[in-house]
Formats: sequence, C-alpha cells, structure tokens
Amino acid sequence: MIGVLGGGQLGRMLGIAGVSLGKKFVFVDPNPEAGAKSVGQLIVGDYDDEVSLRALAEACEVVTYEFENVPLRAAEMLDELVPLRPSPRALELMQDRLSEKRLFEYLHIPAAAFIPADSEDELRAAASDLGLPVVVKTRREGYDGKGQRVVRDSAELDGLWAELGEVPLLVEAFIDFDRELSVIGVRAEDGDSKFYPLTENTHRDGILRVSVAPADVSAETQAEGEEIAASIMEALGYVGVLSVELFEKDGILAANEMAPRVHNSGHWTIEGADTSQFENHLRAILGLPLGSTAPRGVSAMVNLIGELPTSSDVLAIEGAHLHLYDKTPRSGRKLGHVTITAVGVEVLLARLEELGKIENIGI
Amino acid sequence: MIGVLGGGQLGRMLGIAGVSLGKKFVFVDPNPEAGAKSVGQLIVGDYDDEVSLRALAEACEVVTYEFENVPLRAAEMLDELVPLRPSPRALELMQDRLSEKRLFEYLHIPAAAFIPADSEDELRAAASDLGLPVVVKTRREGYDGKGQRVVRDSAELDGLWAELGEVPLLVEAFIDFDRELSVIGVRAEDGDSKFYPLTENTHRDGILRVSVAPADVSAETQAEGEEIAASIMEALGYVGVLSVELFEKDGILAANEMAPRVHNSGHWTIEGADTSQFENHLRAILGLPLGSTAPRGVSAMVNLIGELPTSSDVLAIEGAHLHLYDKTPRSGRKLGHVTITAVGVEVLLARLEELGKIENIGI
Repeated sequence: MIGVLGGGQLGRMLGIAGVSLGKKFVFVDPNPEAGAKSVGQLIVGDYDDEVSLRALAEACEVVTYEFENVPLRAAEMLDELVPLRPSPRALELMQDRLSEKRLFEYLHIPAAAFIPADSEDELRAAASDLGLPVVVKTRREGYDGKGQRVVRDSAELDGLWAELGEVPLLVEAFIDFDRELSVIGVRAEDGDSKFYPLTENTHRDGILRVSVAPADVSAETQAEGEEIAASIMEALGYVGVLSVELFEKDGILAANEMAPRVHNSGHWTIEGADTSQFENHLRAILGLPLGSTAPRGVSAMVNLIGELPTSSDVLAIEGAHLHLYDKTPRSGRKLGHVTITAVGVEVLLARLEELGKIENIGI
Repeated sequence: MIGVLGGGQLGRMLGIAGVSLGKKFVFVDPNPEAGAKSVGQLIVGDYDDEVSLRALAEACEVVTYEFENVPLRAAEMLDELVPLRPSPRALELMQDRLSEKRLFEYLHIPAAAFIPADSEDELRAAASDLGLPVVVKTRREGYDGKGQRVVRDSAELDGLWAELGEVPLLVEAFIDFDRELSVIGVRAEDGDSKFYPLTENTHRDGILRVSVAPADVSAETQAEGEEIAASIMEALGYVGVLSVELFEKDGILAANEMAPRVHNSGHWTIEGADTSQFENHLRAILGLPLGSTAPRGVSAMVNLIGELPTSSDVLAIEGAHLHLYDKTPRSGRKLGHVTITAVGVEVLLARLEELGKIENIGI
C-alpha cells in the first residue's frame, strides 16, 4: 500500500500509474470528493489530523505527497513511522521560497537576485535596492500565480503588504526572460538519476496553459537544466521526482521555483515518454529501478481550465489524449488536460492548432 | 458511470483507461477480491443475479463485459434497461463455436472445416469424415486451451466424449499452421472502424505466452486480417473491440476463434500503440471518436503465469513496462504481463532475451 497526502489530480495520476504496477493506494484529503478516490481508498481528514496520519502510516509501506504545503509537523511525524519520500527535509526547504533561493545560491545555481522582507518598510527598501521591476512573493503557500505580484511602478507597492496578508515576503529582481522552461528529474535511493527532456511552458494569468516537449533547446541547455536538478537532488539526498521551473534569457538558464513532486509541466510524459513522471516517482520511492525518460516523438500538453470542452471534439483530433480529473468546473480551476502526440513538430503544431479551435480550449 | 460484467484483469485495464478519461466504473463479479475493484465500485454477485444487474443498469450509461460467458439472459435483460455493448446478439453468436464457424462460412472467411457432434457416435463419425488429426472443442465455455483436445490417433477418441463433459462439441480439421496471429479491430456506432497491426502470438499449454507486434507480415496479409475483422463487425453492426485469432499457413490466413472483447494479444497496445485497445473499446461504447491504432515502435508482451518474477528485475530492463493484476499466484493463472517496447526489432529481441533470463518469466 502506498500513502499519498492529497487526493487531487496529481494523486489520481500517481494512482493510475501505480495500479498498473499492482500497487494499492490510500489518500488523505479533507475533500470527500477528492478525484483520487477513483483509484484507491480515501481517508477524509485534515493533513494535521494525527488519527488519520497514524492510520495512513500503519497501512502503508511508503508515503508521498502531491503538494508541498503539507504541514511540516505532520510530515515529520509520518516519517518516524514509515518512510516519507521525498524527505521532510526536502519538503521543509521547498515550502519556503527563501530557503529555496538560498539553496540555489549555495549550489551556485543562477537565479534572480532576492531580498527577504518581513515588513512594509523592508518591502519598500528591498524594491528600492533591487530596482524596479521586481516580483514580490509570499514566502509560503503560493501556487498558480497566487501570492505574487510583479511591481513595475513604486505606486504599486502601496497597500501591497496588506494585500499579500502581512506575511513574510521575498522580493526578487524581475527577469525579463525569453522563455519559460522546466526540468523534471527523478532520483532513486541508490543515487541513480534520470532527467526528462526540458519542457517549454506558456503561462497565462499565472497558470500553466501549454507545455511542449522536448523543448527546442541546444544540448548544452539540456545539460545545464539537468545539472541544476542534479545538484539539488544530490545536495538533498533526494528520492522521487523533482521539478524545477527555469527562465531562459539569452540562452542562459536561471532557476525560478521548484517543487518536491510530480509537476503539471510533466503531464506530457504519460504518453510522450517511455516512462511517465508518475511511474518514475513511484519507482523511486518504492526502491525500484528508474525507467527510461526518453521522449516518444513530440508532445504538447494543454491544460483544461475553468470549463471543459466537449470530449468528442478533443478525441476527434489524431494523437489527442484526454485526461479529466473528475472535478467540478470553476473559474481558474484545472479540470483536466489534453496531451497531443506526434512524430514531428510540424504535425504537432497542426494538431495543436486544430485543438485551439475547440470551444473552451484556452490556447 | 460505465458498467462492466467481470472484474478481472481485462475489467481492471478498462478501468485504468477509463479513469483517465474521467469515467467512473462499477464492476459485477462473484469474487469479492476481483482485481478491478482498485479502479471502481464492485458489486459482488453472480452474473445472473437480477438484483445486481438492475442496480448496475440503474447506475450506468452503458454496460460492457470482459468475458464472453456472460449468461445470455442476463445480457438481454440488461440491454433492455441500458445499452449493452457489444450487443447481446454478438455475444450470443460468439458464445457458441458452432455459430462462430457458421458466420465465418457465411462471410466466406477461410477457416478449418468443421462438423458439430452431439454424441459420442457423432464425434467418431466427424473425426472419421474430416480425417485425423482433428481438434475437438466444446461448443461453449472453453478458454486458454480448456475444453479442447487435438486428436492425432483414433484411440485418443476413447473416453473423450465423457472427458469433455458429454456436451455439444465441434470437431475441426487440424490446421498445421506456420504461425498464430491475431487481429484486433474496433468499430464505433457510426460504423467507423480501425484495426491494430497484426500480432504474432506464441502459446504454450494452450495459454498465450508472448505476443509480438507489429507482426512481420506483408501489407497483403495485414489487409487480409483487417478484412476478416471488418466483415464480421459489419455483419453484426458491432460496437466495441473485436479480437480474431488467426492461423497463417503458406501466407494465407484462416480464422480460428474470436472474442467480443479486448484480448490478451492486444495488451501491447497500452504502450505500443497511439491508443490502447482498452481506451478504444471505451471510446466505441461511449459513442466517442476512435483513437489512432498506429503502432509506436515495436512491442513484445509476455504473460506472467503462475508465479511472479521480482519486479525490480523486470523494471531494470530498458523499455520494460510491468502490469500486475493483483491476483493470488496459482499454477496456470495469468497474474500480470510485461510489455517491452523498443524503436526497432533488433533492440526489442535483445531486451526480450534479457527478460527471458529472469526467474519465473516463462519464455
């Protein structure tokens, strides 16, 4: 039995991959309608509910999580009872954008200059020191663009401290990147590591819309991306899938953020790679050999956000693979994704254009 | 909600494919430990239990089945309440090897000469008329080599009538085939049909061991195989996946048996084709457009029978994909399968050889 904290779409896709491997799953989620319950048992409970967590630990050989905002105390308690992978230490580090940044610095990974700010005055001072524009982020709990603002004019600083909840912030120099890329790596207990081809990502309103893989990058850029993920995983003795969002500017990569889990920009690996990120995460945390991360043709992943297209319209497109998460439609909510596969880029782009014509496909 | 009669590995793999599409499943199976319960609700009940079937019909938009020995009355009752796909008529026809053979004859599909035999005397007369060797099969309920015998010497007829249960038999001329192949086709409600590349199959003790796809056949043989499946599907107004086992002798195909469902010789399509047989069966019965059946590289599927190999040994092989069915090991029982994918045949065979060295891999 594999335990998963969180029963959303990432847990669900971990479960789909794991059932094929003959594994059973138990998910913890406060939502009784969590989509992962289609592929395992669901314990409805808060993430810091000790009774739920003890039940989870007793049932499972290993526990993982699908989101990085697991209460640290819960993670540590679990790890005393059953291996929690990735480790509580990795989780702790990636829960805080400041410690993330400091790790980049320590490992000489290029990233935006940054200054922490714990008050309105410190926020203004940091913005002034770095020079506008800056990106202001809450140190904790942000995702999908929530808890962050780009500040281009000093007037935009007025009220921002209050607006972001009067919580510790991180102020970063704005990188006027050419492209957003991401690298997904996986590391086994014995240190064996593999990396997927870099993915090129397009966001809108802070939410990932489209990923194309393999990204059209040089071998040097691919190696640079892998080296970034490798050095982080090595430093942390990491076990599982690690995702790092990257900015590319003039052919040079800078790390933006990272997550100790499978990642939306890796969903294309289900059909587009020899082994999916979900299966490889499970292989890693179960102590099994990692699978090949080689791409199979080219892929584009399109998120379905807020409203769903008609399934038959999507499936009429050659090479289209539909994934629905069993979630109630709501503005800004990720409800599913479509991965289009093709043998070459030209065909891929033609199919993507076809997909874009369908109602409720936001590309 | 999709209903499935039978909760074994075929139901389980239908469920895995369907959960990705956002569908929920309910399975009926007398076995409370049926493996499909990992991916849906399980109604524990006999296939002719009217209460279970009514509950199934009420919950579902469509019902299908994973084995062809569903009681016909149950199928007909269900189909009055909710669409049963493939239809009760297709099921009825394929439950009886005699009606199967008569359909081949009617459609001018080459197949072994045959004579039905409803008594010991008729069995002897049929064997004598056809000339030894013959294959003697029960008309109903046979699978994995059960309920059939090859008779090479007339002494082998002694006691055979009793041994096979004193039930209606079919006696067939023995085809000394060069190879066993199979064709898997899928037909949508609107008549659109697609076919996977022919698969080459190797059996031992009547049970499928290895399938290799695409089989090394000429374009003419591929077309011949497709034509056989197409004519059957067309004649029956068939909806769903149809599998036809074929004998190849001197480059000519003859139909052996068929099944109104996804088939063991199509498991390679999960990784080895653009769309798996499981997803295409669901697309067909749900009235969705069919997906591409194009192969992705070359694949070999190896059944895991009786005992399981160590997972880590299997997964250490590049391109190996492990599927376990969550069944208790027992001699002759299909417990899982491994699909090996590769870009070309040479690499595939090398990987297959590596796989063959692992304990409990029976190739």
